[in-house]
Amino acid sequence: QINADRLWDALMEMAKIGPGVAGGNNRQTLTDEDGEGRKLFQSWAEAAGMTMGVDTMGNMFFTREGSDPEALPVYVGSHLDTQPTGGKYDGVLGVLGALEIVRTLNDLNIRTKHPIVVANWTNEEGTRYAPAMLASGVFAGVHEEGWAKARIDAKGKSFGDELKRIGWEGDEPVGARKMHAFFELHIEQGPILEDERIDIGVVTHGQGLYWLQVTLVGKESHTGSTPMPKRRNAGLGMARVTELVHEVAMDYQPNAVGAIGHMEVHPNSRNIIPGKCVFTIDIRSPSLETLEEMRERIEDGIDTICEALDIGHEIEIAGHFDPVTFDEGCVKAVRDAAERLGLTHTDIVSGAGHDACWINRVAPTAMVMCPCVDGLSHNEAEEITRDWARNGANVLMHAVVETAGV
Amino acid sequence: QINADRLWDALMEMAKIGPGVAGGNNRQTLTDEDGEGRKLFQSWAEAAGMTMGVDTMGNMFFTREGSDPEALPVYVGSHLDTQPTGGKYDGVLGVLGALEIVRTLNDLNIRTKHPIVVANWTNEEGTRYAPAMLASGVFAGVHEEGWAKARIDAKGKSFGDELKRIGWEGDEPVGARKMHAFFELHIEQGPILEDERIDIGVVTHGQGLYWLQVTLVGKESHTGSTPMPKRRNAGLGMARVTELVHEVAMDYQPNAVGAIGHMEVHPNSRNIIPGKCVFTIDIRSPSLETLEEMRERIEDGIDTICEALDIGHEIEIAGHFDPVTFDEGCVKAVRDAAERLGLTHTDIVSGAGHDACWINRVAPTAMVMCPCVDGLSHNEAEEITRDWARNGANVLMHAVVETAGV
Ligand SMILES: NC(=O)NCCC(=O)O
Ligand SMILES: NC(=O)NCCC(=O)O
Repeated sequence: QINADRLWDALMEMAKIGPGVAGGNNRQTLTDEDGEGRKLFQSWAEAAGMTMGVDTMGNMFFTREGSDPEALPVYVGSHLDTQPTGGKYDGVLGVLGALEIVRTLNDLNIRTKHPIVVANWTNEEGTRYAPAMLASGVFAGVHEEGWAKARIDAKGKSFGDELKRIGWEGDEPVGARKMHAFFELHIEQGPILEDERIDIGVVTHGQGLYWLQVTLVGKESHTGSTPMPKRRNAGLGMARVTELVHEVAMDYQPNAVGAIGHMEVHPNSRNIIPGKCVFTIDIRSPSLETLEEMRERIEDGIDTICEALDIGHEIEIAGHFDPVTFDEGCVKAVRDAAERLGLTHTDIVSGAGHDACWINRVAPTAMVMCPCVDGLSHNEAEEITRDWARNGANVLMHAVVETAGV
Repeated sequence: QINADRLWDALMEMAKIGPGVAGGNNRQTLTDEDGEGRKLFQSWAEAAGMTMGVDTMGNMFFTREGSDPEALPVYVGSHLDTQPTGGKYDGVLGVLGALEIVRTLNDLNIRTKHPIVVANWTNEEGTRYAPAMLASGVFAGVHEEGWAKARIDAKGKSFGDELKRIGWEGDEPVGARKMHAFFELHIEQGPILEDERIDIGVVTHGQGLYWLQVTLVGKESHTGSTPMPKRRNAGLGMARVTELVHEVAMDYQPNAVGAIGHMEVHPNSRNIIPGKCVFTIDIRSPSLETLEEMRERIEDGIDTICEALDIGHEIEIAGHFDPVTFDEGCVKAVRDAAERLGLTHTDIVSGAGHDACWINRVAPTAMVMCPCVDGLSHNEAEEITRDWARNGANVLMHAVVETAGV
């Protein structure tokens, strides 16, 4: 059994770095606050006797040696970066839960056969730099490192420069590490577990996603003196695409979702018809077929909308992953752990993307989920109970120790 | 006849201050660039023998004495501030055209009976500080000076502080000056004159306007793991209101227009359902009845939209003026001047708001319009010909001199 109070204290301590404006956190990737959070985590991990490695994407790895010098490590972790208006648990629970496992094993003087490595993946959230799960994606060979480092934020600052600036560009080549397995604990970020009063979600699959970044080009002109038929209104185009995405998602729900969270209007003046809009469509489904069908319908719809408004458009894929099936063995380890601990559990599909989804391509992987209040995440009011955190970390520990051997 | 080359050179010289990114200008009100533009204008006006007065809203007045010490001045001018992606002529032509009148009268050694005052009104555009025509509105007694000075820009900087910062807060009480008449030359900003190949628009009326600043409040949550029926999507609400405004305007056009040029999405993250949107609806009509009807339909529609999406809303009037009827005598002076100069002309309704619309409440006022290419304005590509500028300034001069007497 992990020490729930110690875990909770660590969560609350980390939450002091990059506080939000409404009780949550704004510790976006590669900001000063991210750097500070990493330092705190490093100090804790080193105090727990682990040694650090950092790769050139800033991914952090802390190793607790195993008894078998030949055995590949079992990796466990998540991410410390947050949304601009994020909660205290999204990602953080998975990193500090992993640290808590090691602290507990230290307390109990248990040495595993396989080493255990606690990981913090850079830029999981994807808000400052799209796509999400960028650095685990490079680790898994999905993205080129050079491409990833050239990603720019809204102010034009590159990932590579910002990683250097905060002092967390390591020297390990990305993806060189081989894993025996990877486990990630995460809050559900959806309402199922809480609604059904279930302790643990055994994550068998993850939804697939497209982020389609759309640029609509109309013509800036005066809102007062431009006759209605002469307008080429990119803002009206964006509005129609927003409705379209919603309609398409509603046609497939509950097996799909869709929305637009990011919108920019140029020049954004009250009396100028928008000449350009840039926004990102987020569509997801656990079914590859549905996901592709949605994308097709939306792209066709954008064609029609733009033709009617006499505006131009470009679509860029700013993020994409296919639906994921996690490793049977690892999933079983999670399910067995919940069972052994006497916790209620259910198989569940992750609605969100996770680093585990990429790592699953290069190592046997599974995830543990615990409930969160009202299913709310990506909101400063995100909340969990100490019991939920304890249950999740306990299942994580049992699955990891089971897989690492004693 | 004014000197068209000298006028054109002045326009091109002024356009060097606060250049845009595409051949136009970004010389928004109370920026350093606005300060620089004012200084250049001051140097020209003083070189033309005029004396400066500046009021506490930063409105600039340059006086050319008349022959009758009792006579009230004839005012003439417009604004030097621009949109963030504005053109070289919107406002500027009216100010430098007025300066050109004085230069011409100096050349010809003509002294008018009434003094002539060339004016530059602060913050006509309204992009940085809503509403538009802010300082002429205070001059005309429509807005309180304290309220106007407390207006804040997107970065939270107040009008009053910024006016002080650029060093253009004068000491004259606003609105103390009495006028014999006011004339404003402006580009049409719409396509009628060019389409009909007419030299001069004699502005008889101006459209009325509402700027309705709407705040929609939904709930931030995860785009991937929040089930569709649980969403409270403020971005979808904004999209529906955008469509609504367009539909309502289409129902009344050509006697109305409507659009949304300003939109903000919070927290504007690709994977967060928008929790809050703030945007400004711009609706206009030359008919007061139509304008009020549109507003009512839009406000009712917002109620319905928000109810369906379970989101809250607030509506604030960020700008408002009723349709304007200009002074019969001044309008006749403009029409007669065009006639006398042998220029084709037509009576026209201004689609845009102008400082003249407010000054019309405290002095007999009229406007002269000249065509602009493709009716395009509030766009860096805004363009006019040297001939159009010449014709406009000549009509302005004749109307002013006629009214000021010789
Ligand atoms: N878990 C999580 O919120 N990840 C961010 C990527 C996504 O949008 O799913
Ligand atoms: N003339 C002009 O563009 N004025 C700005 C105010 C408006 O939006 O009409």
